[in-house]
Amino acid sequence: MTLMRVYLDHNATAPLRPEARAAMIAAMDVVGNPSSVHAEGRAAKALVERARAQVASAFGADGADVIFTSGATEAAALACAGRGLLGAAIEHDAVGAWVSDDLPVDAGGLVQVADPARSVLQMANSETGVVQALPEGLAVTDATQAFGKLPVAFNWCGAQMALISAHKLGGPKGIGALVVRRGTEIAAQLRGGGQEMGRRAGTENIIGIAGFGAAAEAAVRELASGVWDDVAKLRNILENSLEAAGNKTIFVGKDSPRLPNTSCIVTPGWKGETQVMQMDLAGFAISAGSACSSGKVRASRVLRAMGFDEGAAASAIRVSLGTQTTEEQVLRFAEAWLAKEKKHRARAA
Amino acid sequence: MTLMRVYLDHNATAPLRPEARAAMIAAMDVVGNPSSVHAEGRAAKALVERARAQVASAFGADGADVIFTSGATEAAALACAGRGLLGAAIEHDAVGAWVSDDLPVDAGGLVQVADPARSVLQMANSETGVVQALPEGLAVTDATQAFGKLPVAFNWCGAQMALISAHKLGGPKGIGALVVRRGTEIAAQLRGGGQEMGRRAGTENIIGIAGFGAAAEAAVRELASGVWDDVAKLRNILENSLEAAGNKTIFVGKDSPRLPNTSCIVTPGWKGETQVMQMDLAGFAISAGSACSSGKVRASRVLRAMGFDEGAAASAIRVSLGTQTTEEQVLRFAEAWLAKEKKHRARAA
Repeated sequence: MTLMRVYLDHNATAPLRPEARAAMIAAMDVVGNPSSVHAEGRAAKALVERARAQVASAFGADGADVIFTSGATEAAALACAGRGLLGAAIEHDAVGAWVSDDLPVDAGGLVQVADPARSVLQMANSETGVVQALPEGLAVTDATQAFGKLPVAFNWCGAQMALISAHKLGGPKGIGALVVRRGTEIAAQLRGGGQEMGRRAGTENIIGIAGFGAAAEAAVRELASGVWDDVAKLRNILENSLEAAGNKTIFVGKDSPRLPNTSCIVTPGWKGETQVMQMDLAGFAISAGSACSSGKVRASRVLRAMGFDEGAAASAIRVSLGTQTTEEQVLRFAEAWLAKEKKHRARAA
Repeated sequence: MTLMRVYLDHNATAPLRPEARAAMIAAMDVVGNPSSVHAEGRAAKALVERARAQVASAFGADGADVIFTSGATEAAALACAGRGLLGAAIEHDAVGAWVSDDLPVDAGGLVQVADPARSVLQMANSETGVVQALPEGLAVTDATQAFGKLPVAFNWCGAQMALISAHKLGGPKGIGALVVRRGTEIAAQLRGGGQEMGRRAGTENIIGIAGFGAAAEAAVRELASGVWDDVAKLRNILENSLEAAGNKTIFVGKDSPRLPNTSCIVTPGWKGETQVMQMDLAGFAISAGSACSSGKVRASRVLRAMGFDEGAAASAIRVSLGTQTTEEQVLRFAEAWLAKEKKHRARAA
């Protein structure tokens, strides 16, 4: 008997929601270019605007501008490049590429912001799930991991701009948005067309945009139903199971507010990348740190910033659940992981 | 009886090919992030690499690097921004945003390049269809309109880099590529991830990429079957029909090498935007100039560069056929257009 694989890497990317799939397939029949003035063009434009309204509503950003981009990475560049903003070392690389890394981070993963108007702060960390309290007047927030998993409303979050991504909440990869308070000046980086209110040139990814709109709407409906509370229970069952075995495992950020689905697990002396490979062979998809750079596994910058030493940071794995994850899957993972951990200890002794 | 609408704006965007649709729907079931090292991630990565090989092969670019971007606009920025390249005023706005506009253009739409290594030149113009002879050693070519309609091979075209776009050849909107000769240095503009060989960060649009690969392969197969020769015949039937009516209409670039599907039609004194609206109401989708900026119709920069005066340039329409266009559709368009033209003349007299 072959057991089905268990996907526990939802913070890297989430499976496509059925609502997104249906919206995308419907959008495949829309022929026009949204910039064309004829009926076909207007139909394509209407599809984009409907999705924009869906995303704005789901993100609590009615009245703000939603600028569709090719993902949160492009949104980060559009929001941050050339502005000399301040950030912490726990920001995602796509943000870190444009901001400083010297805002102080405490052992619980929480960041202190002294000058909000010149600073960037994520809502939730992709590796640890630690959730920040955003200061009023913040320049930019990265809401990529929070949107869809936590009740967030852009209009009340205190930030001038926010980055969001479709594929983290069950939309397609390759589409995201920069959300900005109306009136914020943004100079386009992609130029040569008047799309996205002059802030982002290029023919719109209408199939992806349709998928984003439908996924955002579905994600927020699901969030309202309380399903993430059940996910949090499963995450706690997972952590309790691993803890009960009496090993030296640390659950990073456990005492801070966290996303309901994320567990960052440090087992000193057992390399994260080894664990990922062993668990992959055993049928489980997890990760060591974030998935952002191709295949190269380095000691987590996030954990280093929280005060973990190089060895501990290199021993981290991330297990991130989804709303379709079952208790049976979580228990099966715990059992398999504990068996490997026991072997590792035996070898290391 | 309601007549079906006739779409004659393929240079703005082409309908999605069935092969692309099927590949995209299949890609919807691929769960992983291509940057993840587990089995799900590797499957996503394999899908991207398969599509990359399809695009390279279809574009005659085996051995070159295909860097997937969110479209030709992003590829243009990646290829041209900050390099001080020379170009002509007939380049697409997405290229024109980054290059000079002073390379000389003759009345037939042909451009003279003095310094290829510092210049950009399109393969074919989106508005007139005029096809350029590319000089050896050209820095950048915009192959967006040529790829799929003409037999082109990047490895033999003489250019160091080329921009391509999926949706012009029956792939989805929102995906394209910058193709570069191996060894060309390109500094990433989107940063914070190692994707696309370090040249373009951001989680890959895998559904769009799958569609691009399948569409490119199908487009080149169709091209080899000679179907565009038939399209050229229909385009000539169209132009002959309009000409036979004895009006003052000019077919721009008719004496130059042209794309097989494009007719740029100037009827002095009859505004292009009026024609587009009238034909739209009559059931035909055409355009005035390029579709790139939202709804704003200005006198064609391309025609001005070819020596047409402001009035003539504002009187241009573009009719661009596809491989599914039929003779019946073309004749129906000619009939409807001639009737409107007659009315226009009566009013103007």
